[in-house]
Amino acid sequence: MHRITGHGDKGAAIVAALNQARSVLLCVHQIPDGDALGSLSALLTTLQKQGKTVIAYCRDVVPQIYRFLPAMELVQQTFPEDASSIDVAVVMDCGDLERVCTNPDFLQNVAMLVNLDHHVGNPLFGHFNWVDTEAAATGEIIYQLHEMAGWPITADVATALYTSLMTDTGSFQFSNTTAYTLRLAAELREKGARIEEIRREVYESRTLRSLRLLQQALSTLQLSTNGKIAWIGVSLQDKERIGAIHEDFEGLISYPRTIKGVEVALLFREIEAGTVKVGLRSQSTIDVAAIARHWGGGGHRRAAGCTIKGTMAEAEQQLLAVVKECLDED
Amino acid sequence: MHRITGHGDKGAAIVAALNQARSVLLCVHQIPDGDALGSLSALLTTLQKQGKTVIAYCRDVVPQIYRFLPAMELVQQTFPEDASSIDVAVVMDCGDLERVCTNPDFLQNVAMLVNLDHHVGNPLFGHFNWVDTEAAATGEIIYQLHEMAGWPITADVATALYTSLMTDTGSFQFSNTTAYTLRLAAELREKGARIEEIRREVYESRTLRSLRLLQQALSTLQLSTNGKIAWIGVSLQDKERIGAIHEDFEGLISYPRTIKGVEVALLFREIEAGTVKVGLRSQSTIDVAAIARHWGGGGHRRAAGCTIKGTMAEAEQQLLAVVKECLDED
Repeated sequence: MHRITGHGDKGAAIVAALNQARSVLLCVHQIPDGDALGSLSALLTTLQKQGKTVIAYCRDVVPQIYRFLPAMELVQQTFPEDASSIDVAVVMDCGDLERVCTNPDFLQNVAMLVNLDHHVGNPLFGHFNWVDTEAAATGEIIYQLHEMAGWPITADVATALYTSLMTDTGSFQFSNTTAYTLRLAAELREKGARIEEIRREVYESRTLRSLRLLQQALSTLQLSTNGKIAWIGVSLQDKERIGAIHEDFEGLISYPRTIKGVEVALLFREIEAGTVKVGLRSQSTIDVAAIARHWGGGGHRRAAGCTIKGTMAEAEQQLLAVVKECLDED
Repeated sequence: MHRITGHGDKGAAIVAALNQARSVLLCVHQIPDGDALGSLSALLTTLQKQGKTVIAYCRDVVPQIYRFLPAMELVQQTFPEDASSIDVAVVMDCGDLERVCTNPDFLQNVAMLVNLDHHVGNPLFGHFNWVDTEAAATGEIIYQLHEMAGWPITADVATALYTSLMTDTGSFQFSNTTAYTLRLAAELREKGARIEEIRREVYESRTLRSLRLLQQALSTLQLSTNGKIAWIGVSLQDKERIGAIHEDFEGLISYPRTIKGVEVALLFREIEAGTVKVGLRSQSTIDVAAIARHWGGGGHRRAAGCTIKGTMAEAEQQLLAVVKECLDED
């Protein structure tokens, strides 16, 4: 199965570099998601089979829901001592080098740096860059790399790449899901992708804690009078009472966001006394990144964040005033 | 795109019957889901374009989340007066005729009855039966019928059939998702399936009511000491306070079911004073249909239901005693 990617030459050069390399460093972005870790798992599994020495780096520990992916136990949170011991470093799913870690200089000293990504605006920081902004997931590029190299797609690799595609397309619901993405998913299924395992681990492994947090957050749910703004909040006290950790907040904002008629959803999280982190989501027209910038935050048009000094009530008041103004102008 | 279905002859006979028919009655099961209504929408849209008189029947009104499907405004809750006015009746996604309505005799009097389905155990009640138990959704059969007949897959038909596939496979997560299902989804995407619309309408149109209900239900969440049983309950009083309707309960049981380590999940719903409806779900080994039969209920191994006379507390006590016994024996 082929798609014309325009990366034929670069792809061949990357394959050649990886085939020649003896030691390879694989990196993904901090706070890693399913696409980053699925891509990492696939390439790590394959290169190990080729007899390479492979080091897998992620600044953050692998979240519980992705630990079922093959070879995840090998992921380490530190770079190796010596950059010169690495023949090729491959950075996957990172829109820029700063996404890897706060100090990515190490990677600049590696003999060859390869950049495999699908984010718009990637500054092509590698010696070789395979950046396909039409790819739904970096996993698509990893598949094409396998195809080009003739590396077998084992059931493990298929499971990892299906996880990439599935998580970056919202389970094939987002508009980035192309016919190619779905054909690739079909190929992976045929090659043994264990989709029941993916479902169980990624989508059906809730913690009791995360449900307690959801219940608490929903108890604070409010809607503006015109029904266009919905918000929830979690105070420090409630977070501590529940014992909630970072992962438990994942997906929380989708509850207010998916109420019919809501244009802007907000999640207020008290991270310390007097400091409130705000997550903002927009359904269509409103640019929430512009709103977040009022408080020095940022993000995308439809997903952004900022941090506000003040109590929960003060943060709500300030945010709502600005959001209401934006909606009126709309 | 072709799959050998073994239904070539029957398929051709069904196509011929539909091509010759002037008036067609299309039926799906009561409490209709996305596969039933997606199939109905696709065939209804196509046959109307062919200039047929088409009547669409569903005992229950179309749930809000499926009203975006093409031609849903034509679905009626009554059969036509006279069975002899119908040339062909097509029953879709019904494991047996009783799934259509409590009194399906009307359909027995139609000149030709066609049965299109994918449920195991379908008793082949039609004059022509196209029952493919390997199909992930009845929508796959409707697609093949289009292919065989040479009817065009318009963007409307593609959107309807993508909804069928997506909803019956849990967004391509369940093990019934085959490589064929995914290739078909790719075809439909290519033919204009509006997946953003599907996502917004089916998955992102929560009501405030349903979130209030979720919050209330989660506040009752309990786990057995070994963590293998999780349950939630909604009393009549809470249901009425929230103003919750049947649709709001959709998916509620998945919250206790998807807690890591839970084998059996239960939802207790007081439907009137002294009567409690129980939904049961099993993650893998336990046959919850066998448990439900203690109280005259039934279902499948992994999804079942029953009704218990007593208070919420009594129902919980009775159910938990039996489930605990089953888990010990496990």
